[in-house]
Amino acid sequence: MSSEDDTAQHRFDVHPWGVGWSCRRNTGWEDRGQAHRESVFSLSNGHIGWRGTLDEGDPSAAAGSYLNGVFEEHPMPYAEDGYGYPEHGQTVMHVPDGKVIRLIVDDEPFDIRTGELAEHRQLLDVRTGILHRTATWTSPAGRTVTIASQRMVSFTHRSIAAVRYEVTAADAAVDVTLLSEIVADEPLPEVHSDPRVMDALRDPFEPVAHHGGGGRATIVQRTRRSRIAVAVAADHRVSSSQGAAPEPHTDVSADLARTSVRARLDPGASIALVKCVGHEWSPDLDDVALQDRAEAAVETAMQIGWDGLVDEQRQYLDEFWTRADVTVDGDERLQQSARFSLFQVLQSAARAEVRSIPGKGLTGVGYEGHTFWDAETFVLPVLTYIAPSAARDALAWRHSTLDHARDRAEQLHLEGAAFPWRTIDGQECSGYWPAGTVAFHINADIAAAVVRYVQATGDVDFEREKGVEILVETARLWCTLGRWDDEGAFHIDGVTGPDEYSAMVDDNFFTNLMAQRNLRAAADACRRHRDQASALDVSSDEIARWTTTADAMAFPYDAARGIPEQSAGFNEKERWDFEGTPDDQYPLQKHFPYFDLYRKQVVKQADLVLALQAAPDAFTPDVTARAFAYYDGLTVRDSSLSAPAQATVAARVGQLDLAMDYLAEAGTIDLDDLQEDVDEGLHVAAHAGVWNALVCGFGGMRDDGGALRFAPRVAAPMTAFSFGMLVRGHTLRVEVQHDAVTYRLMSGPALGIRHFDEEITLEAGVAQRLGIPALADPGPRPSQPRGREPRRAGAET
Amino acid sequence: MSSEDDTAQHRFDVHPWGVGWSCRRNTGWEDRGQAHRESVFSLSNGHIGWRGTLDEGDPSAAAGSYLNGVFEEHPMPYAEDGYGYPEHGQTVMHVPDGKVIRLIVDDEPFDIRTGELAEHRQLLDVRTGILHRTATWTSPAGRTVTIASQRMVSFTHRSIAAVRYEVTAADAAVDVTLLSEIVADEPLPEVHSDPRVMDALRDPFEPVAHHGGGGRATIVQRTRRSRIAVAVAADHRVSSSQGAAPEPHTDVSADLARTSVRARLDPGASIALVKCVGHEWSPDLDDVALQDRAEAAVETAMQIGWDGLVDEQRQYLDEFWTRADVTVDGDERLQQSARFSLFQVLQSAARAEVRSIPGKGLTGVGYEGHTFWDAETFVLPVLTYIAPSAARDALAWRHSTLDHARDRAEQLHLEGAAFPWRTIDGQECSGYWPAGTVAFHINADIAAAVVRYVQATGDVDFEREKGVEILVETARLWCTLGRWDDEGAFHIDGVTGPDEYSAMVDDNFFTNLMAQRNLRAAADACRRHRDQASALDVSSDEIARWTTTADAMAFPYDAARGIPEQSAGFNEKERWDFEGTPDDQYPLQKHFPYFDLYRKQVVKQADLVLALQAAPDAFTPDVTARAFAYYDGLTVRDSSLSAPAQATVAARVGQLDLAMDYLAEAGTIDLDDLQEDVDEGLHVAAHAGVWNALVCGFGGMRDDGGALRFAPRVAAPMTAFSFGMLVRGHTLRVEVQHDAVTYRLMSGPALGIRHFDEEITLEAGVAQRLGIPALADPGPRPSQPRGREPRRAGAET
Repeated sequence: MSSEDDTAQHRFDVHPWGVGWSCRRNTGWEDRGQAHRESVFSLSNGHIGWRGTLDEGDPSAAAGSYLNGVFEEHPMPYAEDGYGYPEHGQTVMHVPDGKVIRLIVDDEPFDIRTGELAEHRQLLDVRTGILHRTATWTSPAGRTVTIASQRMVSFTHRSIAAVRYEVTAADAAVDVTLLSEIVADEPLPEVHSDPRVMDALRDPFEPVAHHGGGGRATIVQRTRRSRIAVAVAADHRVSSSQGAAPEPHTDVSADLARTSVRARLDPGASIALVKCVGHEWSPDLDDVALQDRAEAAVETAMQIGWDGLVDEQRQYLDEFWTRADVTVDGDERLQQSARFSLFQVLQSAARAEVRSIPGKGLTGVGYEGHTFWDAETFVLPVLTYIAPSAARDALAWRHSTLDHARDRAEQLHLEGAAFPWRTIDGQECSGYWPAGTVAFHINADIAAAVVRYVQATGDVDFEREKGVEILVETARLWCTLGRWDDEGAFHIDGVTGPDEYSAMVDDNFFTNLMAQRNLRAAADACRRHRDQASALDVSSDEIARWTTTADAMAFPYDAARGIPEQSAGFNEKERWDFEGTPDDQYPLQKHFPYFDLYRKQVVKQADLVLALQAAPDAFTPDVTARAFAYYDGLTVRDSSLSAPAQATVAARVGQLDLAMDYLAEAGTIDLDDLQEDVDEGLHVAAHAGVWNALVCGFGGMRDDGGALRFAPRVAAPMTAFSFGMLVRGHTLRVEVQHDAVTYRLMSGPALGIRHFDEEITLEAGVAQRLGIPALADPGPRPSQPRGREPRRAGAET
Repeated sequence: MSSEDDTAQHRFDVHPWGVGWSCRRNTGWEDRGQAHRESVFSLSNGHIGWRGTLDEGDPSAAAGSYLNGVFEEHPMPYAEDGYGYPEHGQTVMHVPDGKVIRLIVDDEPFDIRTGELAEHRQLLDVRTGILHRTATWTSPAGRTVTIASQRMVSFTHRSIAAVRYEVTAADAAVDVTLLSEIVADEPLPEVHSDPRVMDALRDPFEPVAHHGGGGRATIVQRTRRSRIAVAVAADHRVSSSQGAAPEPHTDVSADLARTSVRARLDPGASIALVKCVGHEWSPDLDDVALQDRAEAAVETAMQIGWDGLVDEQRQYLDEFWTRADVTVDGDERLQQSARFSLFQVLQSAARAEVRSIPGKGLTGVGYEGHTFWDAETFVLPVLTYIAPSAARDALAWRHSTLDHARDRAEQLHLEGAAFPWRTIDGQECSGYWPAGTVAFHINADIAAAVVRYVQATGDVDFEREKGVEILVETARLWCTLGRWDDEGAFHIDGVTGPDEYSAMVDDNFFTNLMAQRNLRAAADACRRHRDQASALDVSSDEIARWTTTADAMAFPYDAARGIPEQSAGFNEKERWDFEGTPDDQYPLQKHFPYFDLYRKQVVKQADLVLALQAAPDAFTPDVTARAFAYYDGLTVRDSSLSAPAQATVAARVGQLDLAMDYLAEAGTIDLDDLQEDVDEGLHVAAHAGVWNALVCGFGGMRDDGGALRFAPRVAAPMTAFSFGMLVRGHTLRVEVQHDAVTYRLMSGPALGIRHFDEEITLEAGVAQRLGIPALADPGPRPSQPRGREPRRAGAET
């Protein structure tokens, strides 16, 4: 990092319940992390995503108003074509942006780059779900005003986002004009290097309808290729500290709705504008129905009013935090990041409602807004225990895309379903097959998420109605993808596992392990749901075949080292020259060709370690520790998905200090922009990983086969931590201190759990405090590739 | 094949010295193979390529006038970018086309699709190097004329192509107008599926200059991106059977030069036009110098005149055929294809003069006009023995691109030079790295061609001036590309060998074998040329390292089968389901995803078999036979490069009948359009393979380490064959009959050779006739994948 970057470390203020940022300068605004802040201050409910742009729109890095599922299609360019390459890509679209409120002070537009900014503060409060902003600004003409805005994307009203914007005159009277807009022609940032792709995305919307008057406005547009209609409606309420509020006036064109309010403010007087914006989209609803829905949502929100919306948001979040809060004593940055992360997980999915959970949520255009395996592998394990209905909805979305997945499997000459590596609507959009098409583990990841969800919630209806079909179709894929050898072992050749610095390997351990579980789960589910099974033409022979195949699954093993192998022969490959790789050559994929990465022992992100995490019971503690140490020495963490898994497994093998370092890195990956890519959106899966590392790593939580188990340990600088979860109808809190754990069952009937090796029964309302056994010597701290040690938050660089 | 295609079998007339085609219909012209004929009737000298279009330009599939080295640059599109992906591609450009001569008969343009075509014949005469055409046509208005044209691309005047066009009136007087053109705005056929690429290529030239008058015209243009200037000049001479010839008149614009000649022909009278066209290009010469060169070449050619050009062409080819002719008795189709093939090899390279030999020569836009390993691996082994100066020039071209290859190696973090997988000017243009970047064997293929050339010619000057540097830089590549294992073996991991249905394999046998020879050759050359070696900073340590590395090279071996393995672990992979693959699913890469091909035992084209061919001494006869049989059972021949190598090795292991079948397929791959892609140009390497199969396969010729050896055998339906070659200054002819061989040394001092295991000495002018020993039982004929047996020419399908 350059020294400029060094000073930018810890750029956000630390709050236990939020993230703040303040400045007293108004120069070099964009250079000083504007795009980064827009991502961090994003608000979302899983349906709407509003980036944390300034109210007045400028300066802005990427305006960012997204609706989950709204994308434009574009051609996929290839230098050399190949069979099965996807012809069309999809990119999330910036929809008409209702968050803009411009301010004019005595004919001078409020722009933080001009005049004098006495103070500027932003604070994302994750307890209330409100983004606060205050600014005191003196215009170039010498007029001073104070601006206080609050913004929310409602968790309780899915299509509603709202802003309250208040301007107060300082020591002199001023004329103020508020221009509240819906802006529909903002350009998309460069999401693809190919101009042909960008051509398709440059002007994606055609106008459908627009109207407005008074304080109301509606714009309806439709994407040109994907034919998705979007309606954005707004209404306004004005109040004044000095008598009757002025009337708003609205003009609307196809691309811009502008509601203006003018007032003369006496010194100390203020005017406030509340704006509610409704968002609806559909690929098939007619335009009128769509705009009616958006306007109806706005009308409801206006009736509830700003304070009502704030109250509802707080109630929603109170309930969430009561259930799910994670407290950390002794490490205020970790406390901040634990809650910020959990809030981001919630934001990404709370109201997605049978839409995907993109890798970056709705916080930016990174990865073109695509969903990967991140959702099922990292995000759903958290949602399942803290917001199970959101987990159910996300899996229902996967179920809704089964026809696309079946078509893809058929194209690949496989049976069952081949879920896409990256997509928005369920169709494969990956343009690099060695790390796309053949990352077949996505299918098992989805199956595992189904199993986990059903097991943790007991939602048998979901299993019957949707789960069985997912399990059956993914199980079928494995049977045709793999092959039997002469000794009766089943191999899965030529696939890419989680580690993207390997590709097209045979018997990736993680893939085979997950496929094995997928096959067994399909067999189990079909035995439980015989009607569903026959509806899917599952015979008893087929069930038997799944079981036989699962039992015969090959797992590569490095006998010399006594550890499982990431894939067949991996540990025999040449070791990457870590000593000879300078720091500025990371991330490696930007400085070395794939072929060189693929043929050597170098791991981008947890792969075998992810298998250790996913199936702790499949490995003895010794094997786990050896395997973790070996692969930690090869893992460069060029992916945000890596540190959380490393933290989890490090904690489990007793490497608590190392686990804390990985956890700290995971927790600040976005706040400190460790990968220098947060401008394009947050890493939602990494945020989920923070919870996972705390709960499954330090908490030692396992929920395999119905037996909930904890083995918690605190590590410095933490002095204590606690977490909550929902499991099979029970609400449970676990409070961990250095020497003891307190389990509190908040509700529900008695619950049997294991505390380390002890079986105990929890009764609702009765706290149980149990001692923590001494930690066995975990041996020396595993070392990492030179220069790739975890970046501990707060450490000097 | 459809029945329509069946009837199109043997569509060309069989001549011992040429290829003919005639028709009496003038409907459905384009459907009936127009593009195919344009490729087959292409004329070239390696500098100019003129496709065999009709003189009048229409109907035409692809006009096709190419100059070796003239290309336009275009952006390379990728759905997902990666480090080291080439940013710019190159595509051969159609230059201003000087072969067009339109005819107007009493105001009716001669067009074979109109009026009545009594007869139409084309004949490519490979003995004279002339393309003949005759047509008798009655215009819609009822006027009948006979057209006789002859076309040549001169072997003796590098930049000259010429046409003689004669029209004769039949039984009525007619007014005829001849419009002889240089056409500079003909559109390029679709060479790439990406519109962005085509946009860059659609209008590639900008005008630079044009002028003309009388019978003369010149057009100078320049490519917009690659900045290559092209000058095409023409002059004309008119003669008449009825008195003074009319004067030509020329108009020239930036895009079109048109020389017109008008005459009234009495019944039986004729007018003839001779047109000489000069072609020059340069990336750096100034425009005036360039056009002066083109015009000077034309002036010289006009002075020599048509008959003089024809005589020179004949003399050139007489000399060539005297040296190089291949005769085949008993199989007239094989006789035809043997000479046609040899002529195509000559055409591709004769006057290329330090330019590349593209995969399709200058006969079409297939592969965008790129050069691959074909040149060094298939074409140069022939040229070295029949036109060594062309081989030298091709290698000098590779030498001239060393800076590009060094840059590429550096980009890949390798030492030495990494030659491009596909290119026009030496810069890598491959857009699919698994079959491009990592096909590193190209480097050893080039090194092997250097060694072969120097050994076969004794051209020590070339070795010193250029060869050493190529050998050194390629040897350096292998040292950094490979790695040492703990047992002291040297491995080359993650490469792609010749077989494109495997990729990114470890220890590809062919690659390692060729790399081993590359290393040894570099060491040998540096010991012979110490000054050159020190100029290249080669130390004795480095030489020792090459030798040590070569000695330690790992070669995968299948102990169970007792055969070398195509790559490490290849023979353990799942076998492709050949039985379950219907005929219409070939070529496999158009119907199956790469990942599935890569992970299974299925071979697109000779790979291990190519190693058997390249290094016969490295394998015992038993191992060779077993390995050939094993891999023949896996090889689907979805590449034109495969059958010739299979023919060669089949002949060597005594599978003569199978060898004949492969040879027949190789010989007719273009004439019968077996791969349905000849429209885009001829398969020059496959043509070279015909010679190789006859000489190195049936002739048993080996020239390893300076000891020339023959072990010839005739196979039915051949009753005898003969071939000639130049070796170390000797001209040798070998005439093979069923029971005996006659060796004739045509010139030079005495030459020691081996006939089977017998050492003999040949004296110039003294024929030696020696018996052929009985063929040992070669065992059963190897079988091929179902439906992929060789397609014997003439066999009913």
